[in-house]
Amino acid sequence: MELVPGNSLITASPEDGRALAVLMARNTIHAVRPDVEVLTNTMDSETLTAAAHIVSIEFATIAAANDYWR
Amino acid sequence: MELVPGNSLITASPEDGRALAVLMARNTIHAVRPDVEVLTNTMDSETLTAAAHIVSIEFATIAAANDYWR
Amino acid sequence: MELVPGNSLITASPEDGRALAVLMARNTIHAVRPDVEVLTNTMDSETLTAAAHIVSIEFATIAAANDYWR
Amino acid sequence: MELVPGNSLITASPEDGRALAVLMARNTIHAVRPDVEVLTNTMDSETLTAAAHIVSIEFATIAAANDYWR
Amino acid sequence: MELVPGNSLITASPEDGRALAVLMARNTIHAVRPDVEVLTNTMDSETLTAAAHIVSIEFATIAAANDYWR
Amino acid sequence: MELVPGNSLITASPEDGRALAVLMARNTIHAVRPDVEVLTNTMDSETLTAAAHIVSIEFATIAAANDYWR
Repeated sequence: MELVPGNSLITASPEDGRALAVLMARNTIHAVRPDVEVLTNTMDSETLTAAAHIVSIEFATIAAANDYWR
Repeated sequence: MELVPGNSLITASPEDGRALAVLMARNTIHAVRPDVEVLTNTMDSETLTAAAHIVSIEFATIAAANDYWR
Repeated sequence: MELVPGNSLITASPEDGRALAVLMARNTIHAVRPDVEVLTNTMDSETLTAAAHIVSIEFATIAAANDYWR
Repeated sequence: MELVPGNSLITASPEDGRALAVLMARNTIHAVRPDVEVLTNTMDSETLTAAAHIVSIEFATIAAANDYWR
Repeated sequence: MELVPGNSLITASPEDGRALAVLMARNTIHAVRPDVEVLTNTMDSETLTAAAHIVSIEFATIAAANDYWR
Repeated sequence: MELVPGNSLITASPEDGRALAVLMARNTIHAVRPDVEVLTNTMDSETLTAAAHIVSIEFATIAAANDYWR
């Protein structure tokens, strides 16, 4: 599993950047918690909420990398 | 459901930027917790507070994208 | 209720910027938890502490918008 | 009580900037929880730890405002 | 144990940068909690989730250091 | 106790910067919780994990101050 899918932070659009943020959060949580399927209902609610928080941080990095797709 | 409604981080005003931040937080939490209606009283209080936290992070990204509407 | 009071992130001073950060945190928490009076003792202590955390993030954005009132 | 003591983010040194960060975190937590003496042992441990977290975020803003005292 | 493996934030690619972020998070958590093997199932789920959160913050710093590998 | 050891954010290397981040997190937590030895096993696990989180935020500030030691 790649930690950064495609090995690049550059995406064509904000939507693609957001999808990349979700994947990066998912992969990292999966890397540290291989026993759970990430972002499914088998996770407890606290972890799922934390996942959404992590997505927002990853997206901030990706948005800056893409100069906010301006 | 779009992860980034309108597929753009550029908005006409801070108020519109804040509304976009709320939508992005809502959509991401909904994506990871499809069983709950996000930002309603069916969510537990911890998740609702976390949602407000995530909104503040999304808004920071959107505000930078818009050069703070200066 | 406006999400961004005055629809602007620009303020005359750091004190005004901090007050705006408090209002934005308050409005967002109120938007997601209409059943509570925000920043009063009817909130549980965890939510109150989270509110202070969110204020610090909002203020970081507002301070950057104002080029730190330098 | 001022939210931003001195109504300025500019300080003479990193040490002064850190002290300002502590004051701003303290004032905001006090503003939202007037029933407790902030940063004393009358606070529960979770809130005290959160206070340290908030100090780190306030300091990041203050350090940027001062161009890191370079 | 080095806190920053290789004593540099510069990496050849986003994937390498992400791996560095994981190592830095791991080393810091290990430094403060020497009794646990970090990022294994001997950690409780809350700490594992916090580890993923910390990785996202470290990665933001590393990505900026590398000008986002643009 | 100094809040910012050496009263400067400038360090010779990333490793030194990381060590400074650990000291700043330690000093701040100690300032707000004088009853505990910070970063030892006398702290509860939640506080130790929060300490690692705070280190990551302090390090982001220090890294920017040093222009990422590029």
